[in-house]
Amino acid sequence: MSLYQAPLKDIQLLVENALTTTGLDELPTMADFDTELVNAVLEEAGKFAAGELAPLNRMGDIQGCRFEDGKVMTPDGWKNAYRQFCDAGWMGLALPAEFGGQSLPRFIAQPVNEMWLSANLAFIMFHALTQGGSEILMHFGSDEQKARYLEPLISGRWTLAMSLTEPNAGSDLGALTTRAVKQDDGRYLIKGQKIYITYGDHDLADNIVHLVLARTPDAPAGSRGISLFLVPKYRIREDGTLGEANDVRCTGIEHKTGLHGSPTCSISYGDKDTCYGELIGDENRGLAAMFILMNEARLSCGIQGVALGEAAYQQALEYALERTQGTDYRGGRERVAIAQHPDVARMLLSIRSEVMGLRSLSYLIAAQIDKAEHTPDADERKRLQDRVALLTPVFKAYATERANLMAGTGIQVFGGMGFVEETGVAQLMRDARVTTIYEGTTGIQARDLVFRKIQLDEGVALKALLDEIDADANRLEDLPQATDTLRQATGALRDQIVPMVSSGNLLRLNAGAVLLLEALGTLCCAWQLGNLAALALSRRDQDPVYYGNLIALAEYYFAHSLPAIQARLLSFEQAEAGIANYRFDD
Amino acid sequence: MSLYQAPLKDIQLLVENALTTTGLDELPTMADFDTELVNAVLEEAGKFAAGELAPLNRMGDIQGCRFEDGKVMTPDGWKNAYRQFCDAGWMGLALPAEFGGQSLPRFIAQPVNEMWLSANLAFIMFHALTQGGSEILMHFGSDEQKARYLEPLISGRWTLAMSLTEPNAGSDLGALTTRAVKQDDGRYLIKGQKIYITYGDHDLADNIVHLVLARTPDAPAGSRGISLFLVPKYRIREDGTLGEANDVRCTGIEHKTGLHGSPTCSISYGDKDTCYGELIGDENRGLAAMFILMNEARLSCGIQGVALGEAAYQQALEYALERTQGTDYRGGRERVAIAQHPDVARMLLSIRSEVMGLRSLSYLIAAQIDKAEHTPDADERKRLQDRVALLTPVFKAYATERANLMAGTGIQVFGGMGFVEETGVAQLMRDARVTTIYEGTTGIQARDLVFRKIQLDEGVALKALLDEIDADANRLEDLPQATDTLRQATGALRDQIVPMVSSGNLLRLNAGAVLLLEALGTLCCAWQLGNLAALALSRRDQDPVYYGNLIALAEYYFAHSLPAIQARLLSFEQAEAGIANYRFDD
Repeated sequence: MSLYQAPLKDIQLLVENALTTTGLDELPTMADFDTELVNAVLEEAGKFAAGELAPLNRMGDIQGCRFEDGKVMTPDGWKNAYRQFCDAGWMGLALPAEFGGQSLPRFIAQPVNEMWLSANLAFIMFHALTQGGSEILMHFGSDEQKARYLEPLISGRWTLAMSLTEPNAGSDLGALTTRAVKQDDGRYLIKGQKIYITYGDHDLADNIVHLVLARTPDAPAGSRGISLFLVPKYRIREDGTLGEANDVRCTGIEHKTGLHGSPTCSISYGDKDTCYGELIGDENRGLAAMFILMNEARLSCGIQGVALGEAAYQQALEYALERTQGTDYRGGRERVAIAQHPDVARMLLSIRSEVMGLRSLSYLIAAQIDKAEHTPDADERKRLQDRVALLTPVFKAYATERANLMAGTGIQVFGGMGFVEETGVAQLMRDARVTTIYEGTTGIQARDLVFRKIQLDEGVALKALLDEIDADANRLEDLPQATDTLRQATGALRDQIVPMVSSGNLLRLNAGAVLLLEALGTLCCAWQLGNLAALALSRRDQDPVYYGNLIALAEYYFAHSLPAIQARLLSFEQAEAGIANYRFDD
Repeated sequence: MSLYQAPLKDIQLLVENALTTTGLDELPTMADFDTELVNAVLEEAGKFAAGELAPLNRMGDIQGCRFEDGKVMTPDGWKNAYRQFCDAGWMGLALPAEFGGQSLPRFIAQPVNEMWLSANLAFIMFHALTQGGSEILMHFGSDEQKARYLEPLISGRWTLAMSLTEPNAGSDLGALTTRAVKQDDGRYLIKGQKIYITYGDHDLADNIVHLVLARTPDAPAGSRGISLFLVPKYRIREDGTLGEANDVRCTGIEHKTGLHGSPTCSISYGDKDTCYGELIGDENRGLAAMFILMNEARLSCGIQGVALGEAAYQQALEYALERTQGTDYRGGRERVAIAQHPDVARMLLSIRSEVMGLRSLSYLIAAQIDKAEHTPDADERKRLQDRVALLTPVFKAYATERANLMAGTGIQVFGGMGFVEETGVAQLMRDARVTTIYEGTTGIQARDLVFRKIQLDEGVALKALLDEIDADANRLEDLPQATDTLRQATGALRDQIVPMVSSGNLLRLNAGAVLLLEALGTLCCAWQLGNLAALALSRRDQDPVYYGNLIALAEYYFAHSLPAIQARLLSFEQAEAGIANYRFDD
């Protein structure tokens, strides 16, 4: 089995498509980032992913992290790869040049990130945390905090950990009980237990900065009484050098079904009552700050879905082209590669179409975030921000749900070999399993979608999206039934679903939120694959096989996945059935 | 987390329902098997499953099997459990009393089997093999072979292994190359390499009898030139005692993503050219004999799906009733058990409805097999055999595909804890993953369904099933829209799909076979849940909560799962879209 290869042709096309679709490339501030630069960065990142990260992925899974004498040891090769990653400047790719980063826009950073995630998800998990945490510091940190923390984080001398979950506060952050008591010198004494902290301890960097959510003594109950603190593992002296250990203790790591190379830590803060932290922003405003990191993490998590799907596709395709078994379905006695069996082709296309649809959506979101940041037009900024806010939960949840299915389908293509760990495809299924859970479960994303992103703004952002999909559907006249099928779905959403969400049948909306999210996810993929097919139709002569395949992908998806939208909406409209009266305590 | 508890109330109700639905209980030969006897056996089996097998399941997963010095060692506790299992007479539950079995009909043996599978799938895998292999011997073995092999197999002194797959012959058995050369004394010298042999070697029994598929030197090519041989690990003397080792060598076991406690062996036969076997039945008729075992194994594999779903449901339900997180969706400040969140309830009901629908289908098939065996009416026998033949691939593939989803949903209910191995729910996902692959992949089952079970008999068996579903649908007038929705589906299948299958668009049928199978699987579950709801409506006063829940389950399934049938059929009708023109070698 060969390892991951960066799918640069696909990525470059989809980046280009996202730029032109959003018009981001027309902004003067983007002039520096021409095709040549973009492709150079993508190629280097692809080389690093394929050459340095992918070869460590399987050993990281087998060896896992170890917890010995209160310390976490990462797998063999992790340290060296980390050093190379930082030395090449990858950590700060999208972070400010002022603090050592490269200030690249997100539309470049996101596909780069995707390649790393495909190659070795367990290894690279520190990156999204450091990226998101640095953005929090940029927004909410004092100048002194920025000066003190950002450069070491961006250079990779320190890493960042996100310390939210407690045993009794998971999805329900408002229930957390970690305490923070202000001292006379302005610092806070932190005390509490946190769990599920990714890279909460490790041996890769000199220091680990924990972003800890905690309550001050007189804070209001629930989520309005949460503050955010910087809690370094080693105290930081005035001159920025490291001092003695802070009272931060790793008490263990989880034995997980996947992501063995990524340490998931339990941390005890303040066992000896000497754990000092510093407040970021204002007291009781911690969740607002953390939302920046959460949105970052949600997008990154959705990209993990795309990345794992790509990895599953590459493995399944290679196997299906090599493995001969059975004869051609049209007859004949010659054994053929299993990719020639229509059912295997169907499985391969189901992965490939999801990956391309979701990847396209992912790059679109990235370009929209960039444009919202750089456009001088306030209305346009608002429109783009609302769009990104709408798409974020859909993308996070749908991409990760599909990643689980895609990894499963990848195994299925392998047959018996897929169940044997040495092929590596089973690892993808195990690694993928948490992606629908962490950074907000699918159910949490669906509630965000239904109640905040649709009900709260009275469907305005959703309707704008549907209008755009309708307009794009007009370009699909050459694909049989595509225009009609898309418009049926957008019509049903606009005419039936939006009023239903506004109506406020709380049981139905809560029970059906995931169904609606899935319908929207499928619709967005169909929309993106349709747009790619329209592009491919216009360029078919340039590269008939590649663009012909892109058109076939849309045809496949419209036939095989689009009918699920109506089924999901039909279920949504009666989502409370059976649930209202069921007695689980029988 | 408590371990598996036998769901006796559900099982007893569904056994009773299968008996009355098929009229099996009216056959005079069934008079011995009254409710008291049935319940006594089910209770004992449930006790054994919960008390002896379930406690070993997690340790079996952690420890796995070991391969040392050419021998396979099972996990701690396996030997003792095996001894108890055999001593209690469970091995021969459905095998002839003449050879030490208990001759119980399948309608009792199958739910018993299900409970063992729920409790510890990895452990119990030897059972279906010994059951199926013994049936082959009953049908095709000589009197001498029956006398020599059956008693030791049924007593558990020996076990049976099924030796089909070779590195280049998996789904495509016709490609196998293991050779069998007849000697002057009538025995055959066997030579070849086999892989993926469940319990192909182990330390539980005194001898292991391999059922080996091989070719004689002048055999026709392909699947018509395959013969079946009995190849014992230790040679058997005339008096039935064990002699010296046969030339059968275990060369290794697979490192699998699940089923760690079940050894999956590679076996080399005839390294020293002294591996002797004896022919079962006639030369070149091996596949016909093996089909008995395969059908047995396919049904058992489908039951694994039900069993794993039940295990996932029990774990998820217990967690959802204990774990408090968030507040009631209708408002209020009290933290509630997560089972009260409608989205979690939806997930629980999705598992519970699939389990009950598939379990009901499974018991129906068992009762139909019993009735076909015992009815004096030849037409009825033929009708039942055709029905079982139609339902077997649907049940095998659909139950196992759903088991993967159910296990995944079980993890999702646990949230972060589901990704941590200590809860045990992740093991269910890993164990389930092979069930859609072994004993014929989902794609293979779907081809069997479309080409052999529908096209070959011109849709007669399918239409008879649809007629029965239609008739039963009339009983669902009290469930909103149930009758209409079921009839829409049966109508579409009868009027559009059967002619389409007959028409022979080979690309469409091959590409869409799995879609059709899934549509039929959903339809069968809906049919069974509808029938259970009809029963529950008539008994509601006796146990309002339990029967009320059964009605709610059908309501849930009709709303949440039935719409997928039309979507699947719509995709089936255009299944070739995108597949015909895709170039994977680009």
